[in-house]
Amino acid sequence: MTTGVSVVGAGMVPFGKFPERSLADLAWPAVKQALNDAGIDPRRVQAAFCGTAFGGMMSGQRILGRIGLTGIPITNMENACSASSTALHHAVSSVRSGQYDVVLVIGVEKLTKFGGGTLPLEEEDWEVSNGMVMPALYAMRAQRYMHEFGLTDRQLALVSVKNRRHGLLNPDAQMRKETTVEEVLASRPIAEPLTLLQCCPAGDGAAALIICSDKVAPQFRTDPVRILASDLTSGKYTPGFRDLTTPEITRRGAAEAWEHAGIGPDAVDLAEVHDAFSIAELIYYEAFDFCARGEAGAFLEQGHSTFGGKVVVNPSGGLLAKGHPIGATGAAQAVEVVRQLRGEAGERQVEGARIGLSHATGGGIAGFDHGACSIHIYAR
Amino acid sequence: MTTGVSVVGAGMVPFGKFPERSLADLAWPAVKQALNDAGIDPRRVQAAFCGTAFGGMMSGQRILGRIGLTGIPITNMENACSASSTALHHAVSSVRSGQYDVVLVIGVEKLTKFGGGTLPLEEEDWEVSNGMVMPALYAMRAQRYMHEFGLTDRQLALVSVKNRRHGLLNPDAQMRKETTVEEVLASRPIAEPLTLLQCCPAGDGAAALIICSDKVAPQFRTDPVRILASDLTSGKYTPGFRDLTTPEITRRGAAEAWEHAGIGPDAVDLAEVHDAFSIAELIYYEAFDFCARGEAGAFLEQGHSTFGGKVVVNPSGGLLAKGHPIGATGAAQAVEVVRQLRGEAGERQVEGARIGLSHATGGGIAGFDHGACSIHIYAR
Repeated sequence: MTTGVSVVGAGMVPFGKFPERSLADLAWPAVKQALNDAGIDPRRVQAAFCGTAFGGMMSGQRILGRIGLTGIPITNMENACSASSTALHHAVSSVRSGQYDVVLVIGVEKLTKFGGGTLPLEEEDWEVSNGMVMPALYAMRAQRYMHEFGLTDRQLALVSVKNRRHGLLNPDAQMRKETTVEEVLASRPIAEPLTLLQCCPAGDGAAALIICSDKVAPQFRTDPVRILASDLTSGKYTPGFRDLTTPEITRRGAAEAWEHAGIGPDAVDLAEVHDAFSIAELIYYEAFDFCARGEAGAFLEQGHSTFGGKVVVNPSGGLLAKGHPIGATGAAQAVEVVRQLRGEAGERQVEGARIGLSHATGGGIAGFDHGACSIHIYAR
Repeated sequence: MTTGVSVVGAGMVPFGKFPERSLADLAWPAVKQALNDAGIDPRRVQAAFCGTAFGGMMSGQRILGRIGLTGIPITNMENACSASSTALHHAVSSVRSGQYDVVLVIGVEKLTKFGGGTLPLEEEDWEVSNGMVMPALYAMRAQRYMHEFGLTDRQLALVSVKNRRHGLLNPDAQMRKETTVEEVLASRPIAEPLTLLQCCPAGDGAAALIICSDKVAPQFRTDPVRILASDLTSGKYTPGFRDLTTPEITRRGAAEAWEHAGIGPDAVDLAEVHDAFSIAELIYYEAFDFCARGEAGAFLEQGHSTFGGKVVVNPSGGLLAKGHPIGATGAAQAVEVVRQLRGEAGERQVEGARIGLSHATGGGIAGFDHGACSIHIYAR
């Protein structure tokens, strides 16, 4: 016996650099916005799941203590870049199973506390400690993809150009400045072929969602956004050859999500995918079967992944332009999908959007065996 | 529609200081022990919840990657000292609701990585940044309790004496050396009236559990330990007077747990409670109504909380003797209860034990408003 699940409230703070704000300062305005958006009395919230990677002990309790929303079960969840999409997954599961009717999801991160530079990854990870930090990994993916499929530097740069153009239309985006292929290619080299503008910026941010059962959703909004699929998976260790040009974890998660949602890639109007680096967005086009293997560069170049195309990928600007405060990303992707499906996305509205998808994937150095991936499909 | 839930596998590594082991090195033997204890094929595990406070990103994935148990949904959970009891709570909920039939719970922590000294608490917490670290808080509780109820230094020291005596009988305990009231009182002062031997030691450790639905439990063991109650709550902000002599969060959690289990304190044969400091165990006697308010010192002194008494509190040695690797504690408490209820506790066996309780509470500086508390009640 399961019940339908909807999002009835969504809120986020504009992403950016806010070293002067505490984690709780950063997050409570997003929570209040989500509560107000749902028109819900906070006392109706039965549980809260808070996703953060670096927030520190008791992040959710510190945030909710600030607005007096305490006494309920609060759980902090960490799955690297999938932290708050994992929290969303568990919120959806707990409502679907009948355990709760109203659950709050928070995603939050304050990366400026590290003062800049590469994020502190796990030194115990053998490959990380030998230099396989994220930009290096994605540079290898890009190199191999270019070698296999003839992707050009210009096509790769176009991902950043598109997402910056989208981000310009999003008041909540961290990077609100258009760029050109020339500018992207001329920006500081990070790990060949990736340049600075092909890597998501570091920043701070928070987002929140109110998740409801079908039973109570109509009490809060007449336009709930239904969740058709909520899937969480982890990487698999692959001995021997690792194909760097395809993300096994996302392909597997996508297959599960299509099955649970009962739809396929053709039905999707917009997708917020995990474009932490330019090459990432391209390999996700293929993992979600938005286009065939090896054709992502052409798919992008032909305008299929922007407004007016087959599927608008990262209308919010994605991680490259909206920003990527690690633990906040999954929840913020869901906020964007909700706004799009309600027709509230202003200048960046995807015309007639009915089906949306969000995808956050974290961890997972070269073998993806330490990775997490969470995919959600939504409908209005 | 909910199903009954049982523990069919339990494992832990002896707690201690293992600076040379990685987090994964520390935890996978506990996981294997739990799997072997359940006699279960690892491929039957459908999801894993890993509790840790300081384990770092993707702890669960790194641990399970080590034994090839990947591809399933893995979620890392943090609720300070309640981290793995929170993970256990969500495992129980997900099985009870029918989402999964077999879930793995891990608790793990490596505190030696900090090299000793006070744990790094949240500087953003106003009270912590003004000196209200845990020993200071519990010292204040002790002072006030002594003032209110006439508890003596000797009675306070007896908690450590009892739990060290219990720990001596537990091969998995970090501190396996008896002590005396005189020794406890003469040990280094930490925060008056608490001396060194009244504070739990820092250390490393891991524990794991296999949680099952009633449907599949008989496939693994003929003696599943049933979970009668699994409750998670958070602190409440109390403006004005804060009564330091009673833990509101535990009292509230206990009331919920008694209701869900359909039993009261008289039915409990053994309880693993969160004795991070000597005074803590005493105030928990009262929060669980094992004795009346103000009578905890006498209850202990009269032998009611040790072998042969009304309820054996911390037969494992508790945090004071078994040790307290933060994130491992909740799961390790559950391991002890399972062993006791199966009659597998060797020299420290609580005769005829039928009902056990575990209690892990974390965070929650002076007002407890940032706290978490998770309570489980088990039956054979």
